[in-house]
Amino acid sequence: MFVYERAVRFEEVDAAKIVFFARFLNYAHEAMEALLGGLDGGYVRLVNERRLGMPAVHVECDFRAPLRFGDAMRVETYAARIGTKSVTYRYEFFRARDNAHVATVEHVCAVTDLDAMKAVPVPDDVRALLERHRA
Amino acid sequence: MFVYERAVRFEEVDAAKIVFFARFLNYAHEAMEALLGGLDGGYVRLVNERRLGMPAVHVECDFRAPLRFGDAMRVETYAARIGTKSVTYRYEFFRARDNAHVATVEHVCAVTDLDAMKAVPVPDDVRALLERHRA
Amino acid sequence: MFVYERAVRFEEVDAAKIVFFARFLNYAHEAMEALLGGLDGGYVRLVNERRLGMPAVHVECDFRAPLRFGDAMRVETYAARIGTKSVTYRYEFFRARDNAHVATVEHVCAVTDLDAMKAVPVPDDVRALLERHRA
Amino acid sequence: MFVYERAVRFEEVDAAKIVFFARFLNYAHEAMEALLGGLDGGYVRLVNERRLGMPAVHVECDFRAPLRFGDAMRVETYAARIGTKSVTYRYEFFRARDNAHVATVEHVCAVTDLDAMKAVPVPDDVRALLERHRA
Repeated sequence: MFVYERAVRFEEVDAAKIVFFARFLNYAHEAMEALLGGLDGGYVRLVNERRLGMPAVHVECDFRAPLRFGDAMRVETYAARIGTKSVTYRYEFFRARDNAHVATVEHVCAVTDLDAMKAVPVPDDVRALLERHRA
Repeated sequence: MFVYERAVRFEEVDAAKIVFFARFLNYAHEAMEALLGGLDGGYVRLVNERRLGMPAVHVECDFRAPLRFGDAMRVETYAARIGTKSVTYRYEFFRARDNAHVATVEHVCAVTDLDAMKAVPVPDDVRALLERHRA
Repeated sequence: MFVYERAVRFEEVDAAKIVFFARFLNYAHEAMEALLGGLDGGYVRLVNERRLGMPAVHVECDFRAPLRFGDAMRVETYAARIGTKSVTYRYEFFRARDNAHVATVEHVCAVTDLDAMKAVPVPDDVRALLERHRA
Repeated sequence: MFVYERAVRFEEVDAAKIVFFARFLNYAHEAMEALLGGLDGGYVRLVNERRLGMPAVHVECDFRAPLRFGDAMRVETYAARIGTKSVTYRYEFFRARDNAHVATVEHVCAVTDLDAMKAVPVPDDVRALLERHRA
Protein backbone atom coordinates (compact mmCIF):
# COMPACT_ATOMS: atom_id res chain seq x y z
CA MET A 1 0.00 0.00 0.00
CA PHE A 2 1.16 3.49 -0.87
CA VAL A 3 -0.39 6.43 0.98
CA TYR A 4 -0.94 9.78 -0.72
CA GLU A 5 -2.42 12.67 1.24
CA ARG A 6 -3.53 16.15 0.34
CA ALA A 7 -6.19 18.76 0.99
CA VAL A 8 -9.03 19.66 -1.33
CA ARG A 9 -8.21 22.97 -2.96
CA PHE A 10 -10.41 26.03 -3.25
CA GLU A 11 -11.16 25.59 -6.95
CA GLU A 12 -11.81 21.84 -6.89
CA VAL A 13 -15.44 21.98 -5.83
CA ASP A 14 -18.42 22.53 -8.11
CA ALA A 15 -21.64 24.51 -7.93
CA ALA A 16 -23.05 21.90 -5.51
CA LYS A 17 -20.07 22.74 -3.23
CA ILE A 18 -18.64 19.22 -3.37
CA VAL A 19 -15.55 17.97 -5.17
CA PHE A 20 -16.48 17.49 -8.82
CA PHE A 21 -16.51 13.77 -9.66
CA ALA A 22 -13.95 14.02 -12.48
CA ARG A 23 -11.41 15.37 -9.97
CA PHE A 24 -11.18 11.95 -8.34
CA LEU A 25 -9.43 10.72 -11.47
CA ASN A 26 -7.01 13.63 -11.25
CA TYR A 27 -6.38 12.70 -7.60
CA ALA A 28 -5.93 9.03 -8.57
CA HIS A 29 -3.37 9.99 -11.19
CA GLU A 30 -1.56 12.19 -8.67
CA ALA A 31 -1.37 9.23 -6.31
CA MET A 32 -0.07 7.02 -9.13
CA GLU A 33 2.58 9.61 -10.05
CA ALA A 34 3.62 9.76 -6.40
CA LEU A 35 3.80 5.96 -6.12
CA LEU A 36 5.91 5.78 -9.29
CA GLY A 37 8.24 8.30 -7.65
CA GLY A 38 9.78 5.12 -6.26
CA LEU A 39 11.34 4.44 -9.67
CA ASP A 40 14.77 5.79 -10.48
CA GLY A 41 13.85 9.17 -12.00
CA GLY A 42 10.21 8.62 -11.15
CA TYR A 43 7.28 8.86 -13.51
CA VAL A 44 8.98 11.81 -15.23
CA ARG A 45 11.90 9.76 -16.50
CA LEU A 46 9.55 6.89 -17.43
CA VAL A 47 7.59 9.27 -19.68
CA ASN A 48 10.21 11.75 -20.86
CA GLU A 49 13.24 9.52 -21.35
CA ARG A 50 12.04 5.93 -21.51
CA ARG A 51 8.94 7.10 -23.44
CA LEU A 52 6.65 4.76 -21.55
CA GLY A 53 3.27 5.78 -20.26
CA MET A 54 0.22 4.24 -18.67
CA PRO A 55 -2.89 5.38 -20.51
CA ALA A 56 -6.13 4.18 -18.94
CA VAL A 57 -8.09 1.49 -20.71
CA HIS A 58 -10.76 1.00 -18.06
CA VAL A 59 -11.85 2.91 -14.97
CA GLU A 60 -14.48 2.17 -12.34
CA CYS A 61 -15.41 4.53 -9.55
CA ASP A 62 -17.71 4.20 -6.55
CA PHE A 63 -18.58 7.39 -4.77
CA ARG A 64 -19.85 6.93 -1.21
CA ALA A 65 -19.54 10.33 0.46
CA PRO A 66 -18.64 13.83 -0.68
CA LEU A 67 -15.44 15.75 -0.15
CA ARG A 68 -15.70 19.50 0.35
CA PHE A 69 -13.38 22.48 0.57
CA GLY A 70 -11.85 22.16 4.02
CA ASP A 71 -11.50 18.38 3.79
CA ALA A 72 -8.23 16.56 3.38
CA MET A 73 -8.02 13.09 1.88
CA ARG A 74 -5.87 10.01 2.34
CA VAL A 75 -5.58 7.91 -0.79
CA GLU A 76 -4.49 4.32 -0.17
CA THR A 77 -3.07 3.07 -3.45
CA TYR A 78 -2.52 -0.57 -4.37
CA ALA A 79 -1.39 -2.55 -7.38
CA ALA A 80 -4.46 -4.75 -7.52
CA ARG A 81 -3.25 -6.72 -10.54
CA ILE A 82 0.06 -6.75 -12.41
CA GLY A 83 -0.43 -8.32 -15.82
CA THR A 84 1.95 -8.87 -18.71
CA LYS A 85 1.31 -5.53 -20.37
CA SER A 86 -1.20 -3.94 -18.01
CA VAL A 87 -1.50 -2.79 -14.43
CA THR A 88 -4.61 -2.34 -12.33
CA TYR A 89 -4.37 0.25 -9.59
CA ARG A 90 -6.91 0.50 -6.81
CA TYR A 91 -7.32 3.72 -4.86
CA GLU A 92 -9.31 3.89 -1.64
CA PHE A 93 -10.17 7.47 -0.71
CA PHE A 94 -10.70 8.40 2.93
CA ARG A 95 -11.72 11.74 4.42
CA ALA A 96 -9.07 12.72 6.93
CA ARG A 97 -11.25 14.28 9.65
CA ASP A 98 -13.50 11.26 10.26
CA ASN A 99 -11.89 8.48 8.25
CA ALA A 100 -15.06 8.11 6.16
CA HIS A 101 -14.55 5.87 3.15
CA VAL A 102 -15.30 8.38 0.43
CA ALA A 103 -14.60 6.62 -2.84
CA THR A 104 -12.94 3.69 -4.58
CA VAL A 105 -11.33 3.98 -7.99
CA GLU A 106 -10.11 1.03 -10.06
CA HIS A 107 -7.84 2.04 -12.88
CA VAL A 108 -6.60 -0.37 -15.52
CA CYS A 109 -3.64 0.97 -17.48
CA ALA A 110 -1.87 -0.40 -20.52
CA VAL A 111 1.88 0.04 -20.30
CA THR A 112 2.44 1.82 -23.56
CA ASP A 113 5.29 2.84 -25.82
CA LEU A 114 4.32 6.49 -26.23
CA ASP A 115 5.98 6.88 -29.62
CA ALA A 116 4.48 3.77 -31.19
CA MET A 117 1.34 4.04 -29.03
CA LYS A 118 1.25 0.29 -28.52
CA ALA A 119 1.23 -1.85 -25.39
CA VAL A 120 4.55 -3.24 -24.17
CA PRO A 121 5.50 -5.53 -21.28
CA VAL A 122 5.64 -4.08 -17.78
CA PRO A 123 9.34 -3.24 -17.26
CA ASP A 124 11.12 -5.14 -14.51
CA ASP A 125 11.76 -2.14 -12.28
CA VAL A 126 8.11 -1.05 -12.54
CA ARG A 127 6.99 -4.60 -11.73
CA ALA A 128 9.32 -4.80 -8.74
CA LEU A 129 8.04 -1.48 -7.39
CA LEU A 130 4.41 -2.44 -7.87
CA GLU A 131 4.96 -5.81 -6.17
CA ARG A 132 5.83 -3.84 -3.04
CA HIS A 133 2.39 -2.21 -3.17
CA ARG A 134 0.25 -5.27 -3.91
CA ALA A 135 -3.29 -5.31 -2.57
CA MET B 1 -30.23 9.73 -28.06
CA PHE B 2 -28.86 13.20 -27.53
CA VAL B 3 -25.84 14.33 -29.55
CA TYR B 4 -23.23 16.67 -28.10
CA GLU B 5 -20.31 17.77 -30.22
CA ARG B 6 -17.20 19.78 -29.57
CA ALA B 7 -13.52 20.03 -30.37
CA VAL B 8 -10.68 19.08 -28.04
CA ARG B 9 -9.16 22.25 -26.70
CA PHE B 10 -5.49 23.21 -26.60
CA GLU B 11 -5.10 22.68 -22.85
CA GLU B 12 -7.01 19.40 -22.58
CA VAL B 13 -4.15 17.10 -23.54
CA ASP B 14 -1.45 15.79 -21.23
CA ALA B 15 2.30 15.22 -21.48
CA ALA B 16 1.63 12.15 -23.64
CA LYS B 17 -0.19 14.52 -26.07
CA ILE B 18 -3.55 12.75 -25.69
CA VAL B 19 -6.66 13.92 -23.89
CA PHE B 20 -6.16 13.25 -20.19
CA PHE B 21 -8.48 10.44 -19.06
CA ALA B 22 -10.20 12.48 -16.36
CA ARG B 23 -11.37 14.96 -19.02
CA PHE B 24 -13.78 12.37 -20.37
CA LEU B 25 -15.82 12.79 -17.22
CA ASN B 26 -15.82 16.55 -17.74
CA TYR B 27 -17.01 15.96 -21.31
CA ALA B 28 -19.66 13.51 -20.08
CA HIS B 29 -20.94 16.08 -17.61
CA GLU B 30 -20.99 18.73 -20.33
CA ALA B 31 -23.09 16.40 -22.47
CA MET B 32 -25.44 15.76 -19.53
CA GLU B 33 -25.79 19.52 -18.88
CA ALA B 34 -26.58 20.00 -22.57
CA LEU B 35 -29.16 17.20 -22.55
CA LEU B 36 -30.81 18.66 -19.44
CA GLY B 37 -31.02 21.95 -21.32
CA GLY B 38 -34.29 20.40 -22.52
CA LEU B 39 -35.83 21.14 -19.10
CA ASP B 40 -37.57 24.43 -18.49
CA GLY B 41 -34.65 26.56 -17.25
CA GLY B 42 -32.23 23.72 -17.91
CA TYR B 43 -29.77 22.21 -15.50
CA VAL B 44 -29.13 25.68 -14.07
CA ARG B 45 -32.65 26.09 -12.73
CA LEU B 46 -32.66 22.48 -11.52
CA VAL B 47 -29.57 23.20 -9.41
CA ASN B 48 -29.93 26.86 -8.49
CA GLU B 49 -33.69 27.14 -7.92
CA ARG B 50 -35.08 23.66 -7.43
CA ARG B 51 -31.89 22.71 -5.54
CA LEU B 52 -31.68 19.31 -7.16
CA GLY B 53 -28.46 17.81 -8.42
CA MET B 54 -27.16 14.55 -9.81
CA PRO B 55 -24.01 13.58 -7.96
CA ALA B 56 -22.31 10.48 -9.35
CA VAL B 57 -22.51 7.31 -7.31
CA HIS B 58 -20.84 5.02 -9.85
CA VAL B 59 -18.87 5.54 -13.04
CA GLU B 60 -17.40 3.09 -15.52
CA CYS B 61 -15.25 4.08 -18.48
CA ASP B 62 -13.78 2.11 -21.37
CA PHE B 63 -11.12 3.86 -23.38
CA ARG B 64 -10.54 2.43 -26.85
CA ALA B 65 -8.65 5.09 -28.78
CA PRO B 66 -7.06 8.42 -27.95
CA LEU B 67 -8.30 11.91 -28.72
CA ARG B 68 -5.72 14.57 -29.52
CA PHE B 69 -5.59 18.32 -30.04
CA GLY B 70 -7.08 18.77 -33.48
CA ASP B 71 -9.75 16.14 -32.96
CA ALA B 72 -13.42 16.86 -32.51
CA MET B 73 -15.76 14.47 -30.75
CA ARG B 74 -19.40 13.45 -31.02
CA VAL B 75 -20.89 12.27 -27.74
CA GLU B 76 -24.04 10.20 -28.10
CA THR B 77 -25.83 10.39 -24.79
CA TYR B 78 -28.55 8.03 -23.58
CA ALA B 79 -30.61 7.49 -20.48
CA ALA B 80 -29.66 3.83 -20.07
CA ARG B 81 -31.76 3.36 -16.94
CA ILE B 82 -34.26 5.59 -15.17
CA GLY B 83 -34.78 4.35 -11.63
CA THR B 84 -36.91 5.67 -8.78
CA LYS B 85 -34.21 7.94 -7.38
CA SER B 86 -31.35 7.37 -9.78
CA VAL B 87 -30.48 7.78 -13.42
CA THR B 88 -27.85 5.96 -15.47
CA TYR B 89 -26.46 7.88 -18.42
CA ARG B 90 -24.42 6.24 -21.13
CA TYR B 91 -22.10 8.27 -23.32
CA GLU B 92 -20.56 6.87 -26.49
CA PHE B 93 -17.64 8.99 -27.66
CA PHE B 94 -16.75 9.07 -31.36
CA ARG B 95 -13.86 10.86 -33.06
CA ALA B 96 -15.33 13.11 -35.73
CA ARG B 97 -12.73 12.70 -38.48
CA ASP B 98 -12.96 8.90 -38.80
CA ASN B 99 -15.92 7.97 -36.62
CA ALA B 100 -13.66 5.81 -34.42
CA HIS B 101 -15.41 4.66 -31.24
CA VAL B 102 -13.16 6.32 -28.72
CA ALA B 103 -14.73 5.67 -25.34
CA THR B 104 -17.82 4.62 -23.43
CA VAL B 105 -18.78 6.14 -20.09
CA GLU B 106 -21.54 4.84 -17.84
CA HIS B 107 -22.55 7.29 -15.17
CA VAL B 108 -24.97 6.44 -12.39
CA CYS B 109 -26.33 9.51 -10.62
CA ALA B 110 -28.48 9.83 -7.53
CA VAL B 111 -31.08 12.54 -7.91
CA THR B 112 -30.27 14.53 -4.80
CA ASP B 113 -31.74 17.31 -2.71
CA LEU B 114 -28.64 19.50 -2.56
CA ASP B 115 -29.58 21.13 0.74
CA ALA B 116 -30.38 17.91 2.59
CA MET B 117 -27.86 15.94 0.51
CA LYS B 118 -30.21 12.97 0.29
CA ALA B 119 -31.66 11.08 -2.65
CA VAL B 120 -35.13 12.05 -3.85
CA PRO B 121 -37.41 10.69 -6.58
CA VAL B 122 -36.67 11.62 -10.18
CA PRO B 123 -38.99 14.60 -10.87
CA ASP B 124 -41.66 14.07 -13.50
CA ASP B 125 -40.27 16.58 -15.99
CA VAL B 126 -36.80 15.09 -15.73
CA ARG B 127 -38.22 11.61 -16.21
CA ALA B 128 -40.22 12.71 -19.24
CA LEU B 129 -37.17 14.33 -20.81
CA LEU B 130 -34.97 11.32 -20.15
CA GLU B 131 -37.60 8.95 -21.60
CA ARG B 132 -37.10 10.77 -24.89
CA HIS B 133 -33.41 9.84 -24.81
CA ARG B 134 -33.69 6.18 -23.77
CA ALA B 135 -31.06 3.76 -24.96
CA MET C 1 -14.36 42.59 -32.93
CA PHE C 2 -14.97 38.89 -32.60
CA VAL C 3 -17.74 37.69 -30.27
CA TYR C 4 -17.46 34.44 -28.32
CA GLU C 5 -20.30 33.32 -26.10
CA ARG C 6 -20.78 30.48 -23.67
CA ALA C 7 -22.29 29.55 -20.33
CA VAL C 8 -20.38 29.03 -17.10
CA ARG C 9 -20.20 25.31 -16.44
CA PHE C 10 -21.03 23.48 -13.23
CA GLU C 11 -17.42 22.78 -12.28
CA GLU C 12 -15.99 26.21 -13.09
CA VAL C 13 -16.87 27.90 -9.81
CA ASP C 14 -14.86 27.74 -6.61
CA ALA C 15 -15.67 27.38 -2.92
CA ALA C 16 -16.82 31.02 -2.88
CA LYS C 17 -19.36 30.01 -5.58
CA ILE C 18 -17.92 32.37 -8.20
CA VAL C 19 -15.92 31.55 -11.32
CA PHE C 20 -12.34 30.95 -10.21
CA PHE C 21 -10.14 33.78 -11.45
CA ALA C 22 -7.74 31.53 -13.39
CA ARG C 23 -10.67 30.35 -15.52
CA PHE C 24 -10.85 33.74 -17.20
CA LEU C 25 -7.56 32.93 -18.92
CA ASN C 26 -9.00 29.62 -20.09
CA TYR C 27 -12.01 31.54 -21.43
CA ALA C 28 -9.73 34.08 -23.09
CA HIS C 29 -7.78 31.31 -24.79
CA GLU C 30 -11.03 29.69 -25.93
CA ALA C 31 -12.07 32.99 -27.49
CA MET C 32 -8.68 33.31 -29.19
CA GLU C 33 -8.93 29.75 -30.54
CA ALA C 34 -12.40 30.58 -31.86
CA LEU C 35 -11.20 33.82 -33.48
CA LEU C 36 -8.29 31.97 -35.14
CA GLY C 37 -10.87 29.55 -36.52
CA GLY C 38 -10.99 32.16 -39.28
CA LEU C 39 -7.65 30.87 -40.58
CA ASP C 40 -7.57 28.08 -43.15
CA GLY C 41 -7.47 25.01 -40.87
CA GLY C 42 -7.86 27.21 -37.81
CA TYR C 43 -5.65 27.27 -34.75
CA VAL C 44 -5.29 23.49 -35.01
CA ARG C 45 -3.44 23.61 -38.33
CA LEU C 46 -1.40 26.58 -37.13
CA VAL C 47 -0.16 24.51 -34.18
CA ASN C 48 -0.13 20.96 -35.51
CA GLU C 49 1.05 21.48 -39.09
CA ARG C 50 2.64 24.90 -39.31
CA ARG C 51 4.10 24.42 -35.79
CA LEU C 52 3.37 27.98 -34.77
CA GLY C 53 1.93 28.90 -31.42
CA MET C 54 1.18 32.00 -29.38
CA PRO C 55 2.58 31.54 -25.88
CA ALA C 56 1.72 34.39 -23.53
CA VAL C 57 4.48 36.75 -22.55
CA HIS C 58 2.34 39.19 -20.56
CA VAL C 59 -1.19 39.16 -19.20
CA GLU C 60 -3.22 41.78 -17.36
CA CYS C 61 -6.69 41.20 -15.94
CA ASP C 62 -9.20 43.47 -14.29
CA PHE C 63 -12.05 41.79 -12.50
CA ARG C 64 -15.10 44.00 -11.93
CA ALA C 65 -17.97 41.64 -11.12
CA PRO C 66 -18.31 37.91 -10.52
CA LEU C 67 -19.69 35.24 -12.82
CA ARG C 68 -21.61 32.37 -11.23
CA PHE C 69 -23.05 29.04 -12.28
CA GLY C 70 -26.15 30.01 -14.20
CA ASP C 71 -24.49 32.96 -15.91
CA ALA C 72 -23.55 33.09 -19.55
CA MET C 73 -20.83 35.36 -20.86
CA ARG C 74 -20.15 37.30 -24.04
CA VAL C 75 -16.45 37.80 -24.74
CA GLU C 76 -15.68 40.62 -27.15
CA THR C 77 -12.24 39.92 -28.56
CA TYR C 78 -9.98 42.41 -30.30
CA ALA C 79 -6.51 42.52 -31.73
CA ALA C 80 -5.39 45.52 -29.72
CA ARG C 81 -1.89 45.59 -31.22
CA ILE C 82 -0.29 43.64 -34.05
CA GLY C 83 3.48 43.87 -33.79
CA THR C 84 6.26 42.35 -35.86
CA LYS C 85 6.50 39.16 -33.84
CA SER C 86 3.82 39.67 -31.21
CA VAL C 87 0.09 40.15 -30.92
CA THR C 88 -1.90 41.76 -28.11
CA TYR C 89 -5.43 40.51 -27.70
CA ARG C 90 -8.01 42.31 -25.57
CA TYR C 91 -11.01 40.47 -24.22
CA GLU C 92 -13.97 42.32 -22.71
CA PHE C 93 -16.17 39.97 -20.68
CA PHE C 94 -19.86 40.75 -20.27
CA ARG C 95 -22.49 38.89 -18.24
CA ALA C 96 -25.30 37.97 -20.61
CA ARG C 97 -28.31 38.49 -18.34
CA ASP C 98 -27.62 42.15 -17.47
CA ASN C 99 -24.75 43.11 -19.76
CA ALA C 100 -22.54 43.88 -16.74
CA HIS C 101 -18.93 44.46 -17.70
CA VAL C 102 -17.36 41.62 -15.75
CA ALA C 103 -13.69 41.62 -16.67
CA THR C 104 -11.02 42.80 -19.09
CA VAL C 105 -8.05 40.66 -20.08
CA GLU C 106 -5.06 41.89 -22.07
CA HIS C 107 -2.95 39.10 -23.45
CA VAL C 108 0.36 39.68 -25.19
CA CYS C 109 1.53 36.67 -27.19
CA ALA C 110 4.79 36.00 -28.97
CA VAL C 111 4.25 34.27 -32.29
CA THR C 112 6.55 31.33 -31.77
CA ASP C 113 8.10 28.51 -33.75
CA LEU C 114 7.10 25.66 -31.45
CA ASP C 115 10.00 23.43 -32.43
CA ALA C 116 12.73 26.05 -32.04
CA MET C 117 10.75 27.85 -29.30
CA LYS C 118 11.74 31.25 -30.67
CA ALA C 119 9.70 34.22 -31.82
CA VAL C 120 8.99 34.55 -35.53
CA PRO C 121 7.18 37.20 -37.59
CA VAL C 122 3.39 37.23 -37.57
CA PRO C 123 2.42 35.26 -40.72
CA ASP C 124 0.56 37.21 -43.40
CA ASP C 125 -2.71 35.27 -43.10
CA VAL C 126 -2.74 35.68 -39.33
CA ARG C 127 -2.05 39.39 -39.71
CA ALA C 128 -4.82 39.77 -42.27
CA LEU C 129 -7.32 37.97 -40.03
CA LEU C 130 -6.34 40.02 -36.98
CA GLU C 131 -6.62 43.27 -38.94
CA ARG C 132 -10.30 42.46 -39.36
CA HIS C 133 -10.69 42.36 -35.58
CA ARG C 134 -8.71 45.48 -34.65
CA ALA C 135 -9.76 47.39 -31.55
CA MET D 1 8.97 35.67 1.82
CA PHE D 2 7.07 32.41 1.78
CA VAL D 3 8.36 29.53 -0.36
CA TYR D 4 6.01 27.08 -2.05
CA GLU D 5 7.43 24.23 -4.09
CA ARG D 6 5.90 21.56 -6.28
CA ALA D 7 6.37 19.63 -9.49
CA VAL D 8 4.48 20.21 -12.73
CA ARG D 9 1.95 17.43 -13.11
CA PHE D 10 1.32 15.24 -16.14
CA GLU D 11 -1.93 16.94 -17.13
CA GLU D 12 -0.81 20.55 -16.63
CA VAL D 13 0.84 21.03 -20.00
CA ASP D 14 -0.88 21.93 -23.24
CA ALA D 15 -0.60 20.86 -26.87
CA ALA D 16 2.61 22.90 -27.16
CA LYS D 17 4.00 20.71 -24.32
CA ILE D 18 4.49 23.64 -21.94
CA VAL D 19 2.51 24.55 -18.82
CA PHE D 20 -0.67 26.30 -19.99
CA PHE D 21 -0.51 29.97 -19.02
CA ALA D 22 -3.73 29.93 -16.98
CA ARG D 23 -2.18 27.30 -14.69
CA PHE D 24 0.18 29.92 -13.27
CA LEU D 25 -2.81 31.53 -11.59
CA ASN D 26 -3.79 28.16 -10.12
CA TYR D 27 -0.23 27.79 -8.85
CA ALA D 28 -0.30 31.34 -7.45
CA HIS D 29 -3.52 30.61 -5.60
CA GLU D 30 -2.04 27.37 -4.25
CA ALA D 31 0.92 29.34 -2.93
CA MET D 32 -1.44 31.90 -1.35
CA GLU D 33 -3.48 29.11 0.29
CA ALA D 34 -0.25 27.63 1.64
CA LEU D 35 0.95 31.00 2.95
CA LEU D 36 -2.42 31.57 4.67
CA GLY D 37 -1.96 28.19 6.32
CA GLY D 38 -0.11 30.30 8.88
CA LEU D 39 -3.47 31.56 10.17
CA ASP D 40 -5.26 29.69 12.94
CA GLY D 41 -7.35 27.23 10.90
CA GLY D 42 -5.73 28.42 7.69
CA TYR D 43 -7.47 29.65 4.58
CA VAL D 44 -10.16 27.01 5.13
CA ARG D 45 -11.42 28.54 8.37
CA LEU D 46 -11.12 32.02 6.88
CA VAL D 47 -13.47 31.02 4.07
CA ASN D 48 -15.73 28.42 5.67
CA GLU D 49 -16.20 29.85 9.15
CA ARG D 50 -15.25 33.50 9.09
CA ARG D 51 -16.75 33.79 5.57
CA LEU D 52 -13.94 35.97 4.29
CA GLY D 53 -12.33 35.48 0.92
CA MET D 54 -9.85 37.22 -1.33
CA PRO D 55 -11.30 37.49 -4.84
CA ALA D 56 -8.88 38.92 -7.37
CA VAL D 57 -9.51 42.44 -8.62
CA HIS D 58 -6.36 42.78 -10.72
CA VAL D 59 -3.70 40.40 -11.96
CA GLU D 60 -0.52 40.95 -13.95
CA CYS D 61 1.73 38.18 -15.22
CA ASP D 62 5.07 38.20 -16.98
CA PHE D 63 6.13 34.93 -18.55
CA ARG D 64 9.87 34.62 -19.21
CA ALA D 65 10.54 30.92 -19.74
CA PRO D 66 8.40 27.81 -20.04
CA LEU D 67 7.81 25.06 -17.51
CA ARG D 68 7.40 21.51 -18.81
CA PHE D 69 6.41 18.12 -17.46
CA GLY D 70 9.46 17.03 -15.53
CA ASP D 71 10.14 20.49 -14.11
CA ALA D 72 9.59 21.46 -10.52
CA MET D 73 9.00 25.04 -9.46
CA ARG D 74 9.80 27.21 -6.47
CA VAL D 75 7.29 30.01 -5.91
CA GLU D 76 8.57 32.84 -3.75
CA THR D 77 5.51 34.61 -2.39
CA TYR D 78 5.44 38.10 -0.92
CA ALA D 79 2.87 40.52 0.41
CA ALA D 80 3.88 43.38 -1.87
CA ARG D 81 1.28 45.77 -0.47
CA ILE D 82 -1.11 45.52 2.47
CA GLY D 83 -3.86 48.09 2.07
CA THR D 84 -6.91 48.87 4.18
CA LYS D 85 -9.19 46.43 2.40
CA SER D 86 -6.88 44.91 -0.17
CA VAL D 87 -3.72 42.87 -0.39
CA THR D 88 -1.24 42.61 -3.26
CA TYR D 89 0.66 39.35 -3.49
CA ARG D 90 3.70 38.95 -5.66
CA TYR D 91 4.82 35.51 -6.79
CA GLU D 92 8.22 34.90 -8.36
CA PHE D 93 8.36 31.54 -10.13
CA PHE D 94 11.70 29.76 -10.50
CA ARG D 95 12.45 26.49 -12.29
CA ALA D 96 14.08 24.16 -9.79
CA ARG D 97 16.67 22.45 -12.00
CA ASP D 98 18.45 25.63 -13.18
CA ASN D 99 16.93 28.39 -11.04
CA ALA D 100 15.64 30.15 -14.19
CA HIS D 101 13.27 32.99 -13.38
CA VAL D 102 10.19 31.66 -15.13
CA ALA D 103 7.41 34.08 -14.31
CA THR D 104 6.17 36.87 -12.08
CA VAL D 105 2.54 37.21 -11.01
CA GLU D 106 1.09 40.22 -9.22
CA HIS D 107 -2.28 39.55 -7.68
CA VAL D 108 -4.40 42.25 -6.08
CA CYS D 109 -7.17 40.84 -3.88
CA ALA D 110 -10.05 42.56 -2.15
CA VAL D 111 -10.65 41.14 1.30
CA THR D 112 -14.32 40.32 0.94
CA ASP D 113 -17.26 39.33 3.09
CA LEU D 114 -18.38 36.33 1.04
CA ASP D 115 -22.02 36.56 2.12
CA ALA D 116 -22.44 40.27 1.44
CA MET D 117 -19.84 40.17 -1.38
CA LYS D 118 -18.39 43.50 -0.29
CA ALA D 119 -14.89 44.55 0.67
CA VAL D 120 -14.02 44.65 4.37
CA PRO D 121 -10.88 45.66 6.28
CA VAL D 122 -7.95 43.25 6.36
CA PRO D 123 -8.38 41.36 9.69
CA ASP D 124 -5.63 41.87 12.27
CA ASP D 125 -4.38 38.28 12.21
CA VAL D 126 -4.21 38.28 8.40
CA ARG D 127 -2.33 41.60 8.47
CA ALA D 128 0.11 40.31 11.09
CA LEU D 129 0.80 37.17 9.06
CA LEU D 130 1.27 39.11 5.83
CA GLU D 131 3.63 41.58 7.53
CA ARG D 132 5.96 38.63 8.14
CA HIS D 133 6.07 38.02 4.38
CA ARG D 134 6.55 41.60 3.15
CA ALA D 135 8.49 42.15 -0.04
